[in-house]
Amino acid sequence: MRNLKITIQYNGANYCGWQKQPDSLGIQGTIERAIYEITKEQVKITGSGRTDAGVHALGQVANLKLESKIPYTQIPNALNAKLPKDISIIECCEVEEEFHSRYSAKGKRYRYLIYNSPYRNPIYKDISYHVKYDLDFEKMKKEAKSLIGAHDFKGFMSSGSSVVDTVRTIYDITLSKNENLIIMEVEGNGFLYNMVRIIAGTLVDIGRGRINECLADVIESKSRSNCGHTAPAHGLFLKKVDY
Amino acid sequence: MRNLKITIQYNGANYCGWQKQPDSLGIQGTIERAIYEITKEQVKITGSGRTDAGVHALGQVANLKLESKIPYTQIPNALNAKLPKDISIIECCEVEEEFHSRYSAKGKRYRYLIYNSPYRNPIYKDISYHVKYDLDFEKMKKEAKSLIGAHDFKGFMSSGSSVVDTVRTIYDITLSKNENLIIMEVEGNGFLYNMVRIIAGTLVDIGRGRINECLADVIESKSRSNCGHTAPAHGLFLKKVDY
Repeated sequence: MRNLKITIQYNGANYCGWQKQPDSLGIQGTIERAIYEITKEQVKITGSGRTDAGVHALGQVANLKLESKIPYTQIPNALNAKLPKDISIIECCEVEEEFHSRYSAKGKRYRYLIYNSPYRNPIYKDISYHVKYDLDFEKMKKEAKSLIGAHDFKGFMSSGSSVVDTVRTIYDITLSKNENLIIMEVEGNGFLYNMVRIIAGTLVDIGRGRINECLADVIESKSRSNCGHTAPAHGLFLKKVDY
Repeated sequence: MRNLKITIQYNGANYCGWQKQPDSLGIQGTIERAIYEITKEQVKITGSGRTDAGVHALGQVANLKLESKIPYTQIPNALNAKLPKDISIIECCEVEEEFHSRYSAKGKRYRYLIYNSPYRNPIYKDISYHVKYDLDFEKMKKEAKSLIGAHDFKGFMSSGSSVVDTVRTIYDITLSKNENLIIMEVEGNGFLYNMVRIIAGTLVDIGRGRINECLADVIESKSRSNCGHTAPAHGLFLKKVDY
């Protein structure tokens, strides 16, 4: 059977997240339904990871086993014609049978958008975290560097996760600013549950002066309560999955 | 009576444009209603210019005459609390009685977003023009320079306008690219009806190879039919009004 890798963009605003829920298809189920409409095959697609309700993607990856002989180059347009406008297939290729979008992943890159202004922005409202308070951007940028490397990120994990090994390696984190928009990008070999949103929330709390400890000490403490708040889902984008 | 200048951002997707229509409030009417809710005064606000249905603003300016003694610093938050989330007042100040948001304007800056990719982008879908065809970005950038200066832009005006003097001065036009997004920004002393959208459409047609004349000749011809198509409203942003 063919194994196909697809790259997906979505605006998560109107979805319960990647995964199907009892009363809702999710991104995954919506794509599976579109595949069925084209091929009449009931396939299960496997994502590189779940994204929560409201989280967006610029490069989510999934794979699927298909009988249909439809040329892979035609799949993005064929699926996009069936999918709602807030989901888009931007790439499709044939991969070896062993390829698994989750287990084969070597790393991921996320983007988090913070809109820093006393007043809301109607253009960015659904795709960024609006922070009204003054943020010390230079301090956030400097402190963020402490995240780079292999650390036990136990404090940066929401409760409810069954993960035991909480050591992860951050390869890179950058913060840039374009007018009122702060763009954080972080790349690592893997992320704990809500880790990127807790990193964003902690950096906001540092920038606002609510956390005065240096970030290296916060990480070292391995304590969720020493970290900052969990920044909202709608500022988060899964940008890229590396294989 | 006080004369107040307000700066407004809006996502135009759900509006019939700046101006009131018989069956719809428009951005203008929506703000006037919010002012009434706060002050019980039925004021008419004057915009720096109309924007069409679907067009967005990052810095539209309007002025209004008000009796109410509400401090001007409180006006943005007071209005934003009454306004729908796709409109935001980001600044308010007292101005001299003579100030008129349209007649006092010395220039305007617009932004136009083009998303250039074979596949649609669910994040940018409502705020950019999706162009599927390959565009020669360097050619577009080079040709755009011909717009700078004072020219008779008669060809770059949609029919239905009663304007007689069609000479306008473009101070600056820049095209930049960030991944698949082309950002055009153009500043001038004034713009004819649909002029920015026709500039964007003409540059797309040049980039796609549908117009092979150089842009200087297209301008010189003063003929609408030598220019390109009118790019859609939802890629256009009124960025700034200069006084």
